[in-house]
Amino acid sequence: MNEELIERRRRLLGPNFSTFYKNPVHIVRGKGVWLWDASGKKYLDCYNNVPHVGHCHPEVVNAIAEQAKILNTHTRYLHEGILDYLDRLLSKHHKTIETAIMVCSGSEANDIALRMAEAKTGHRGVIVTDSTYHGNTSAVSQLGYGRNMGPVGDHIRYIKAPDNFRDNETMDISEAKFFKQNVVEAIDSLKEAGHGVSALLICPFFANEGFPNLEHGFLDEAISNIRNEGAIVIADEVQPGFGRIGTNWWGYQKIGIEPEIVTMGKPMANGHPVACVATSTEIMGSFRNNYGYFNTFGGNPVSCAAASATLEVVENEKLIENALAVGQYALKGLEELKKEFPQIKQVRGSGLFFGAEMRGENNEPLTQYVSQIAEKMRDKRILLGVLGKNRNTLKIRPPMVFSKNNVDHLLEHLRDTMKEAECGL
Amino acid sequence: MNEELIERRRRLLGPNFSTFYKNPVHIVRGKGVWLWDASGKKYLDCYNNVPHVGHCHPEVVNAIAEQAKILNTHTRYLHEGILDYLDRLLSKHHKTIETAIMVCSGSEANDIALRMAEAKTGHRGVIVTDSTYHGNTSAVSQLGYGRNMGPVGDHIRYIKAPDNFRDNETMDISEAKFFKQNVVEAIDSLKEAGHGVSALLICPFFANEGFPNLEHGFLDEAISNIRNEGAIVIADEVQPGFGRIGTNWWGYQKIGIEPEIVTMGKPMANGHPVACVATSTEIMGSFRNNYGYFNTFGGNPVSCAAASATLEVVENEKLIENALAVGQYALKGLEELKKEFPQIKQVRGSGLFFGAEMRGENNEPLTQYVSQIAEKMRDKRILLGVLGKNRNTLKIRPPMVFSKNNVDHLLEHLRDTMKEAECGL
Repeated sequence: MNEELIERRRRLLGPNFSTFYKNPVHIVRGKGVWLWDASGKKYLDCYNNVPHVGHCHPEVVNAIAEQAKILNTHTRYLHEGILDYLDRLLSKHHKTIETAIMVCSGSEANDIALRMAEAKTGHRGVIVTDSTYHGNTSAVSQLGYGRNMGPVGDHIRYIKAPDNFRDNETMDISEAKFFKQNVVEAIDSLKEAGHGVSALLICPFFANEGFPNLEHGFLDEAISNIRNEGAIVIADEVQPGFGRIGTNWWGYQKIGIEPEIVTMGKPMANGHPVACVATSTEIMGSFRNNYGYFNTFGGNPVSCAAASATLEVVENEKLIENALAVGQYALKGLEELKKEFPQIKQVRGSGLFFGAEMRGENNEPLTQYVSQIAEKMRDKRILLGVLGKNRNTLKIRPPMVFSKNNVDHLLEHLRDTMKEAECGL
Repeated sequence: MNEELIERRRRLLGPNFSTFYKNPVHIVRGKGVWLWDASGKKYLDCYNNVPHVGHCHPEVVNAIAEQAKILNTHTRYLHEGILDYLDRLLSKHHKTIETAIMVCSGSEANDIALRMAEAKTGHRGVIVTDSTYHGNTSAVSQLGYGRNMGPVGDHIRYIKAPDNFRDNETMDISEAKFFKQNVVEAIDSLKEAGHGVSALLICPFFANEGFPNLEHGFLDEAISNIRNEGAIVIADEVQPGFGRIGTNWWGYQKIGIEPEIVTMGKPMANGHPVACVATSTEIMGSFRNNYGYFNTFGGNPVSCAAASATLEVVENEKLIENALAVGQYALKGLEELKKEFPQIKQVRGSGLFFGAEMRGENNEPLTQYVSQIAEKMRDKRILLGVLGKNRNTLKIRPPMVFSKNNVDHLLEHLRDTMKEAECGL
């Protein structure tokens, strides 16, 4: 059955379009943290952040269904939906994040953010890390270093991602100083090349980088160098945002910065295609003076209803508090596992984005091993992923309704899997 | 009340973000071809193509609501939704359009199409008309000539749009020869600049150009020049597609070409954010070898359910046949009006995309006048727009369930409006 689907997929979606897992799952139904495959088998979803408040949350489903019955049109007409939603969303940010453009994907949001930064600064140079991903348009896919994204513009500088285990680098200066130094070098290089500096674009949780442990204030020195150039900071909150990290609404709050532009996406409307780029009135003005931007679907009444319902559920069900409590419980459980399995080099994360970095006896990243763990967990019907610079970190990022019982279930199977896999180390 | 909304809009969506009409409408409800404002007033929608099968069509609404209850996840897992839909959609195209990427917006689709063309040809040069629009990402917004879209890449060549009233140009060669000549010049210029030629990207109905009357085969010579260079043709079907033009499913079929890449968007899922780029297995292969492209929301089960339901309604309700019959009826009615009003220089269109170009006694485009007509029609609660190179053509592009009665209603008010406005000529 899967064979036939895989074949149709190859024919209709084209070659080299990968699935998760060597033995892909055929998911047909979801509810909360659970997914079911076509044969009725139930999987614990420890991976998907898009269904933020849980798969098929009835309040979001109803909001979509009810608004779709009444009206779905664009923002060239007046409508309260987008205004009510943005009033609410922007209130979760610092006060210079006061205006926004709603779009359909995080890619569209970051694509605009780059143009906003250019319009504001008059420069093109962008600094990103060497293990990041900010989307799939022509402009932003170039920011995804080493991801097979075609030609890369000369106005982009990749700097070393923050890392708790700097490979082949001396550890004699702090990570913050090291990062700042890399930013300064990138600034100099961009100026020398005549691009000038437009923005430092980061996920403030450094999610794809493997979410290293970084102290509050880690970015301060790097950012003051950026601002000294008249350049700005763009925080991509597509992964840490909407309370996922438990301690705050946004990743940038946890690390202690106030970005000039914030982009939000994936979890924003629980799977409905909605994203957003928010900034100050001043930067929005610079952008709008330079670009007659309009997005047909962005901010339509149904998208806004879906996003509003998602925000409401996060608050009503106290899901940020849940993320914090359950996340702390999970980290404790992983620390227990670490005592049993020396290959767990570091347990880390925040809220419902956590994992463990695995390294061997000589500190070598266990890339292959971690990938095997994810495959074996899939066979035990637990879905999780892998990330980080060396792809040797377990990526656990479940819907925000994940419970302590779910953590127990996850860790029990992770322990079994690691025991079984030890011979493969 | 509108004042307050306009003020909130300015604050939350930023400055210079325009509405339709000087006195914008505050739409709260829609059904079929009708829209209602907050005070309960009813408007005839002669403008919106996004709600393709009619505002809030119950079958599309139900499809969205039902699938949203069951599952909404991404295409890294196996799911029949996207495969069943694409099998059906691709069968409406010629046989080399055999594989597709589903995305969230026409902009994302065209952004990929450019990269597909580059991956296939190894060249970057793109030819577009000087009155077009193909979306809003950094890469494709540059194709929208004169639209205040920021810096334009040197790899783009704008050619004169086809025009039934070539301003300041001799009319001693046919429009097809004139167009071909412009394409050839653009090819030469791109080669000279070292870019080579990647693609001719067109809306095959030349919608934004003012949908001039063009004979079947109009593009043949131009395209054979493009293909002689090893370059390809991208048809942007975001406006004419899905049967709008009445005679065919796609604009490219009407004009008689077989593009290598087709992009589809706006009407595809009746307002749900869905779009698509389709091509041959070979071109898809070139793209996928060069770009590790993935779209989180693209092709999710809810989007596919919405798109499938829309396609089904087009077929079940025979909306293409309706577009043809009602469109012909409308053209006849407009021809009658033309006898009364000499400022109507030409009546044209196909299916449910029609209008009239207005010119003065000395053949000057009546840009201001046509814009006034649209404003006055809004006050009579009939929503339509303006387009064309000189923005002197009425743009009438209603939902596909538009009836002959709706045409009568529209034309009656258009007659009155033109009578009242004659003093302003």
